[in-house]
Amino acid sequence: MATKMILDCDTGVDDAMAIMYAALHPGIELLGVGAVWGNVDVPLATRNTLRVLDLVGRTDVPVASGAAAPLLGDRPEFAFHVHGADGQGGAGDDAPVRPAAPTTAAQQIVELVRAHPGEVWLVPVGPLTNIATALALDPELPGLVAGVALMGGSARRPGNVTPVAEANIHKDPEAAAAVFRAPWPIVMAGLDVTMDVILTAEHRDRLAAGGEAGRYLARILQHYGEFYRDEVFGEWQCCMHDTLAVAAAAGVLDVRLAPVVHVEVDTTAGPGRGQTVVDLRGVYRGFPAQHGAHCTVLLDVDDRIADEAVDLIAGHGALPTFGAERS
Amino acid sequence: MATKMILDCDTGVDDAMAIMYAALHPGIELLGVGAVWGNVDVPLATRNTLRVLDLVGRTDVPVASGAAAPLLGDRPEFAFHVHGADGQGGAGDDAPVRPAAPTTAAQQIVELVRAHPGEVWLVPVGPLTNIATALALDPELPGLVAGVALMGGSARRPGNVTPVAEANIHKDPEAAAAVFRAPWPIVMAGLDVTMDVILTAEHRDRLAAGGEAGRYLARILQHYGEFYRDEVFGEWQCCMHDTLAVAAAAGVLDVRLAPVVHVEVDTTAGPGRGQTVVDLRGVYRGFPAQHGAHCTVLLDVDDRIADEAVDLIAGHGALPTFGAERS
Repeated sequence: MATKMILDCDTGVDDAMAIMYAALHPGIELLGVGAVWGNVDVPLATRNTLRVLDLVGRTDVPVASGAAAPLLGDRPEFAFHVHGADGQGGAGDDAPVRPAAPTTAAQQIVELVRAHPGEVWLVPVGPLTNIATALALDPELPGLVAGVALMGGSARRPGNVTPVAEANIHKDPEAAAAVFRAPWPIVMAGLDVTMDVILTAEHRDRLAAGGEAGRYLARILQHYGEFYRDEVFGEWQCCMHDTLAVAAAAGVLDVRLAPVVHVEVDTTAGPGRGQTVVDLRGVYRGFPAQHGAHCTVLLDVDDRIADEAVDLIAGHGALPTFGAERS
Repeated sequence: MATKMILDCDTGVDDAMAIMYAALHPGIELLGVGAVWGNVDVPLATRNTLRVLDLVGRTDVPVASGAAAPLLGDRPEFAFHVHGADGQGGAGDDAPVRPAAPTTAAQQIVELVRAHPGEVWLVPVGPLTNIATALALDPELPGLVAGVALMGGSARRPGNVTPVAEANIHKDPEAAAAVFRAPWPIVMAGLDVTMDVILTAEHRDRLAAGGEAGRYLARILQHYGEFYRDEVFGEWQCCMHDTLAVAAAAGVLDVRLAPVVHVEVDTTAGPGRGQTVVDLRGVYRGFPAQHGAHCTVLLDVDDRIADEAVDLIAGHGALPTFGAERS
């Protein structure tokens, strides 16, 4: 009973890993992927998504392109300094890719969810523009999905864009507000856990010794880890980020602490813009139930998911359409 | 070389303890106390302040009354449910008190600071209305004080009024914004540390077995601890809160972690209103220096300060003007 899933990515280095993980994991049935602006512009996010799926032999998974800018029309701000000029750490390739699906990412979500009512997990790991757009297209969506597991926000950790805001939420706070208000079950994999699940140089080397997908991921991680070395940790390592939302949706993440609480997104122009305001006031009493709360906020997870994801991806290489390179 | 100090209190149960501690501590020279609206209305805060100083024999310390409402003129919201109808846990008394000083709390701050340039610590433990007013009276104040040590705000812990806002800041965010913007050294003793320094039933009983001041404090703590039992911790205990700012100003608090970082107060009407937005993004690198930062945010302190404060107060009882009750 694999978990049906639609990813929504701004691909991106850590997005590439999340796509590989979702595409290869035997417990996940990847129905489709949407591309959104964010780490990179949406044409590049679309191309990178298609390329990564090709690399793992999943040309069967439809990829739809989506929003190129945030809901309110502000100028999109990308993160090429983190993800490289090609969004793949400057180490991607120019292999030809198949065309994207003849629909938008938001419409694809509506169609796939309507085709499998009650079964699909939406897993957005970039700005929430496509998901908010899907909600506007089909306001019944919250009653038709299994849930939304997103990478974004922070409850107790500093932000990574402002002191309190995480990038995916800060890039489109209005879209995020719409997503958090909608009455679907949400699992928030924010910086509280994604800063704790680290890919080390040893992980990189294990990927590099693997198949084609692993070798590709090892290459694109190099620059990403250098960014984290210089700006965050002081040594070469990087956060796994997006893969955690995929693993949470699939139920394969060992979750140690995750209260179900109210979350509100700050859409003001003040210093809190883009913050996920998470109500953890019950922390001193073991988080008593909050009436009407529908957001599960991951606060502590087992970081062995990093090893599992690396092993899964390293073990898969060139598939038949890509020749006999598999190690 | 005792630390010269001006307290500013909305007295309040934990304020009463802070006043006793400041008035009795041999390392503190308490120059004056201001009263401000907050836990209770300002006339009651003034009376309670005078009464507590009388109890410890400090009729020499001038008490000036201050602001009755927040800077923007909003209706003040008090916390009688926490501190009792008399602000003293319903266990205060109606002993006559001397008159307040014939000045305002803000003017008293200006005069005392100008009389001892460079020497005085301001220690506000209620809303920051009086301190902001003093800044407006004398914009040179930041260059004339030793520093400001305040109880208020939170960096990593949940708020106690909203998910992200602590009461003293939330009651008058505009005043707090003015105080945090002014270029004086600030020590922020917020919920990050004040939720960790606990008064237990054993502390209460030790106070009750002490002198008059200790017995008074034990009595007024009873209701306060019941509030914390019912609303926060599930058992009778309470936070020491305000005394931590006094101890920090006096340099007698054992501080384990306290980065000097930028802090901005959220004055929007959004969900972050009243939040202290504290820039802890350097946490992963041991908090590298932040250019221009002037706020020391206490994140971890030794909780043995609770024992020390209890012993100090329990050991002091009826002074000559109050008869021979001292145990």
